[in-house]
Amino acid sequence: MIDLPRHWYNILADLPTPPPPPLHPGTLKPVGPDDLAPLFPMELIAQEVSTDRFIEIPEDVLDIYRLWRPTPLIRARRLERALGTPARIYYKYEGVSPSGSHKPNTAVPQAYYNAKEGIKKLTTETGAGQWGSSLAFACAQFGLECEIWMVRSSYDQKPYRRTLMRVYGATVHASPSPVTEAGKKILAENPDSPGSLGIAISEAVEVAAASPDARYALGSVLNHVLLHQTVIGEEALRQLAELGETPDLIIGCTGGGSNFGGLVFPFLREKLQGKINPVIRAVEPAACPSFTRGTYAYDFGDTAGLTPLLKMHTLGHDFVPDPIHAGGLRYHGMSPLLSHVYELGLFEAVTRNQTECFEAGVRFARAEGIIPGPEPTHAIAETIAEALRCKETGEEKVILTALSGHGHFDLGAYDRYLSGELEDFTLPPERIAESLATLPKV
Amino acid sequence: MIDLPRHWYNILADLPTPPPPPLHPGTLKPVGPDDLAPLFPMELIAQEVSTDRFIEIPEDVLDIYRLWRPTPLIRARRLERALGTPARIYYKYEGVSPSGSHKPNTAVPQAYYNAKEGIKKLTTETGAGQWGSSLAFACAQFGLECEIWMVRSSYDQKPYRRTLMRVYGATVHASPSPVTEAGKKILAENPDSPGSLGIAISEAVEVAAASPDARYALGSVLNHVLLHQTVIGEEALRQLAELGETPDLIIGCTGGGSNFGGLVFPFLREKLQGKINPVIRAVEPAACPSFTRGTYAYDFGDTAGLTPLLKMHTLGHDFVPDPIHAGGLRYHGMSPLLSHVYELGLFEAVTRNQTECFEAGVRFARAEGIIPGPEPTHAIAETIAEALRCKETGEEKVILTALSGHGHFDLGAYDRYLSGELEDFTLPPERIAESLATLPKV
Repeated sequence: MIDLPRHWYNILADLPTPPPPPLHPGTLKPVGPDDLAPLFPMELIAQEVSTDRFIEIPEDVLDIYRLWRPTPLIRARRLERALGTPARIYYKYEGVSPSGSHKPNTAVPQAYYNAKEGIKKLTTETGAGQWGSSLAFACAQFGLECEIWMVRSSYDQKPYRRTLMRVYGATVHASPSPVTEAGKKILAENPDSPGSLGIAISEAVEVAAASPDARYALGSVLNHVLLHQTVIGEEALRQLAELGETPDLIIGCTGGGSNFGGLVFPFLREKLQGKINPVIRAVEPAACPSFTRGTYAYDFGDTAGLTPLLKMHTLGHDFVPDPIHAGGLRYHGMSPLLSHVYELGLFEAVTRNQTECFEAGVRFARAEGIIPGPEPTHAIAETIAEALRCKETGEEKVILTALSGHGHFDLGAYDRYLSGELEDFTLPPERIAESLATLPKV
Repeated sequence: MIDLPRHWYNILADLPTPPPPPLHPGTLKPVGPDDLAPLFPMELIAQEVSTDRFIEIPEDVLDIYRLWRPTPLIRARRLERALGTPARIYYKYEGVSPSGSHKPNTAVPQAYYNAKEGIKKLTTETGAGQWGSSLAFACAQFGLECEIWMVRSSYDQKPYRRTLMRVYGATVHASPSPVTEAGKKILAENPDSPGSLGIAISEAVEVAAASPDARYALGSVLNHVLLHQTVIGEEALRQLAELGETPDLIIGCTGGGSNFGGLVFPFLREKLQGKINPVIRAVEPAACPSFTRGTYAYDFGDTAGLTPLLKMHTLGHDFVPDPIHAGGLRYHGMSPLLSHVYELGLFEAVTRNQTECFEAGVRFARAEGIIPGPEPTHAIAETIAEALRCKETGEEKVILTALSGHGHFDLGAYDRYLSGELEDFTLPPERIAESLATLPKV
């Protein structure tokens, strides 16, 4: 049994070159702390640009992490047996957290730093609700108010995640909502708007910016978010060491990149130091392939074009991915930090289609008992394919994969898969070219 | 970190008198192994009547238990703080299992013993689906077919639990179904029948009894089920000892009694041996109060009157509890073994109403992060009330409670509670008297 890590790992300290800075969309100058102060507390702004290798996890955060951390690293012996593979498969399972995914790893410190600086309320957006429920939980821990804009289509279709946020005490609005100027404007144009993450971000940002007591919180993409998630990889590193194992291959799924970055950065540190040499592989949905079919360029983080410009792998900020069930992977862009690491050639990326992912999810559930969320089924599909390659070659590869959350709120999607109703989408090159044509000129 | 227990504890070895035997409803003679052989494998029939104090957990069962066991024993520090109580509250959390409750503790050995005796298929009934999904998971582990009759009203209202069973590879029928004689008969009379547990049991038993390769599995009530569940209490005993704590009060909820029996029997052993002296308290729903308002008599285990007669605390086999959301506690009877232990005066029982239970569930979730299932909110409500009494008196009581499962599939009920739509039911004495009037004459 390992101890809980006391530090997050900041990969900025070990990269040969720093990533390009975010730019102010008006001036095209690098964004400074003052630009961000209305939205984030100073300590998180400092973490965003810090080059310290290790950042201490505050005792109050550790105290909450202890509710579910260290999370288990499980050898998938039953899956190995079912596949007949000589590979040894380990999965790091984040679904034991209160909201069922890795998201509370960053929600808790974000709530903590805000509370410490006297902030009374956090606002955020959420799509399917994983991030919203995690932030709601974290705010309840520190007595912060939590106000969430949930994309209208999810609000109507996924009432359970919405209820989870309310159980934790959050206020949840369907977005677009009549409580913000941004929402009112959209509703005036289209009272039946199904909403989008872009609109919901605008609403949450508007409310946070207008109040000195409120700040905004983001669940992926930013450096400080990936920093907080490195607790996953730090634990996995210790857990594998305790078992005397060295990974040959590390596989994770990528949407905004926080689960993947959180798992692999500590292993990358060891790799950069020449201690280990695993192949590291990101798996993205074929319907939203920012690494494999996007471009590396400055783009907006949101659809509406309100955020600073971020240098990242992007499909274009107005790219709308097909409605795959892995809602957490339906993001047009990618963490700028992870994008930079990719450009440095430190990991590779592949894509997987929706139905093969659900097939892998069912196979995994029958063997290991846990129903994976649609997002990590991408990593599982790749892991199974790799384990079957090992069966051919006889290689006893050690594979580490990230099971970022359970699928208890996604059984509707499993039902569609089992009923043969789930579809794959083809993404013609023209669609990507079209949205990339609208990239901002930098 | 404790090791996994290697034995289940059989309280029959330590009781001053044995419980009255089940009777054949025709002959009123005690039921023998031959009567049960068409339904259960010999090893489970032997466990049902064994007086061995400890029964070894087979290695193949331990190997699957290890996927989620030992389950955590968590000190509810945040809840204590929120209540301002000097009491120390510990909860034993079974929601980390694949299906999210304590049910796999017995589903796995039941599947194992059946597979070992060459059985190819298990049948069962399920209401809300907790038991069905647990048995489906267990069958997948041993390559057994699993055929489940799910009460029609739940089948229609709770599609997610149904999907969970299908993900694990089970066949799920809405009950009444056209695939059994029992089902056909009901459907002929009423094509729109919402079904009942009684009907679903009849269908599952009919199919098992008709095939030499099939057997039937039950998720609560029977001695061997409570035996398997003692792994909970054995772990909790070791975990508290490791912390240097001795419980003053143990609180659990009761429906059929398997979670409660599983937690408290090992503590009762220590109590009978004079080593500890905790108060032990069962909490039942006010809408289904078999201990506190039922009678101790021979009655049928099912509504249709097909099972052997069981001496137990019962509200009468045709008592239909009001539709509270704690579906797992809506059972007219009680484990005969637990009933006997209650008659021996070894624990006490109280009731709680639905809305105070959900209020406690929300309070717990905001403090501890975990959303409890509606069933364990009964134990939590009692625990909170007791902790507040300690606040008055200043007593530093050590309270142990059972958190038998999470509420991820019950958020509809939480939504109703948060929206003020949840009701309490009053149960007039006449209703109980009426159903008790139909008790079989023994």
